[in-house]
Amino acid sequence: MIGSMGELRMTPLEGVPEVRPGDDLGALLGDALEPVGGLEEGDVLVVAQKVVSKSEGRIEETNDPLGVSLREARAVRRIRGDLVIAETEHGFVCASAGVDRSNTPGEGWVVLLPRDPDASARGIRAALARRFGAAPAVIVSDSFGRAWRQGTTDVAIGVAGLSPLLDLRGAKDTRGRELEATVIAIADELAGAAELVMGKARRVPAVRIRGYRVPPGDGSARDLVMPRERDLFP
Amino acid sequence: MIGSMGELRMTPLEGVPEVRPGDDLGALLGDALEPVGGLEEGDVLVVAQKVVSKSEGRIEETNDPLGVSLREARAVRRIRGDLVIAETEHGFVCASAGVDRSNTPGEGWVVLLPRDPDASARGIRAALARRFGAAPAVIVSDSFGRAWRQGTTDVAIGVAGLSPLLDLRGAKDTRGRELEATVIAIADELAGAAELVMGKARRVPAVRIRGYRVPPGDGSARDLVMPRERDLFP
Repeated sequence: MIGSMGELRMTPLEGVPEVRPGDDLGALLGDALEPVGGLEEGDVLVVAQKVVSKSEGRIEETNDPLGVSLREARAVRRIRGDLVIAETEHGFVCASAGVDRSNTPGEGWVVLLPRDPDASARGIRAALARRFGAAPAVIVSDSFGRAWRQGTTDVAIGVAGLSPLLDLRGAKDTRGRELEATVIAIADELAGAAELVMGKARRVPAVRIRGYRVPPGDGSARDLVMPRERDLFP
Repeated sequence: MIGSMGELRMTPLEGVPEVRPGDDLGALLGDALEPVGGLEEGDVLVVAQKVVSKSEGRIEETNDPLGVSLREARAVRRIRGDLVIAETEHGFVCASAGVDRSNTPGEGWVVLLPRDPDASARGIRAALARRFGAAPAVIVSDSFGRAWRQGTTDVAIGVAGLSPLLDLRGAKDTRGRELEATVIAIADELAGAAELVMGKARRVPAVRIRGYRVPPGDGSARDLVMPRERDLFP
């Protein structure tokens, strides 16, 4: 059975130092997991994109953040004033192609999305599996705006060790009727849940989620991208 | 300080019977809270729209579910085949104007959105406050699809006892720079988190979230609706 079987607990990883290019993020996260008891089989670890990007050197000093966003985009969907809604090389549609000016190494710096956030997640998963003997599902999360709704929610931009979608097609409701809303973006829900624990202004770059059995699989966050031919809001 | 101060725990409310029109949902949820220890000050309760609608008699027998969706919509944004993306009277943009054919009272029935989901949330909050002496923040949740991303996530369609948006404008990052992604849709993140515990095919119509301090306020889920003039994807 996939999902939560009872209580679900989310634990912040605290005490992670400021992450710099070349830092071994798996080791830093492992150190932060020790005081909260490490990892158990079935745990999910959600890691903020910001620290992943910094460890991978995906930062840049610039006096033209808009130019960097346009360079990082493979397509621009909308522009209004300073707001650029762009499609990234990964296929994600988000503001500024994911280029961010807060929580950077300093004034004039921007943080870019990881080049391959699934690979980032796989690397963290492998490092933690070696250390704790249990391989967590790993989600790299970022805050995205949405069409039609105010405010951002965190979503998954990279995953390892899970299928990001829970496909219930063919499953039945409590009366035996086939379910309608049949594909659930559980990786996005896990990322959003973790954001509640991370906050924005505190230094909590990762959250351990215990009690949720993920859909098994070797999925990619690109599975979460709506295929062009089904996109009604290009 | 708003947000999570440590571990965040989500507890499913089980044993709620099939809800019928006229049922006292506050009493049913209160009964389901008893075995898990009731409520404490600061708890958040996420309640699935489906049981709210049923208790309010927002169900209908029809051989024309599409017609019901069009009647419930105040505007149609897109149609492709069976898929209607519509704007509800509340301003929410979602498939079928929220009209749902699964987990209904039976074949040929549909469940509609509550007429005033904020009022539904306020009613549940008041009933539980009387019973437990602590007024929870209440969120009524539903599964919505998204532009550009596959799969649904649960979002807030009604709230009571909280501001659904956490506004960080003016707040500083760990280096003292003003934060960029400054408004977080925490009610949507709470709703999505609760979905992980509810599942779809089980009878878990509500989840208690403990350990998250909500932004105080007397907000409405309509605060989550992007105003028309800022909507880049009409």
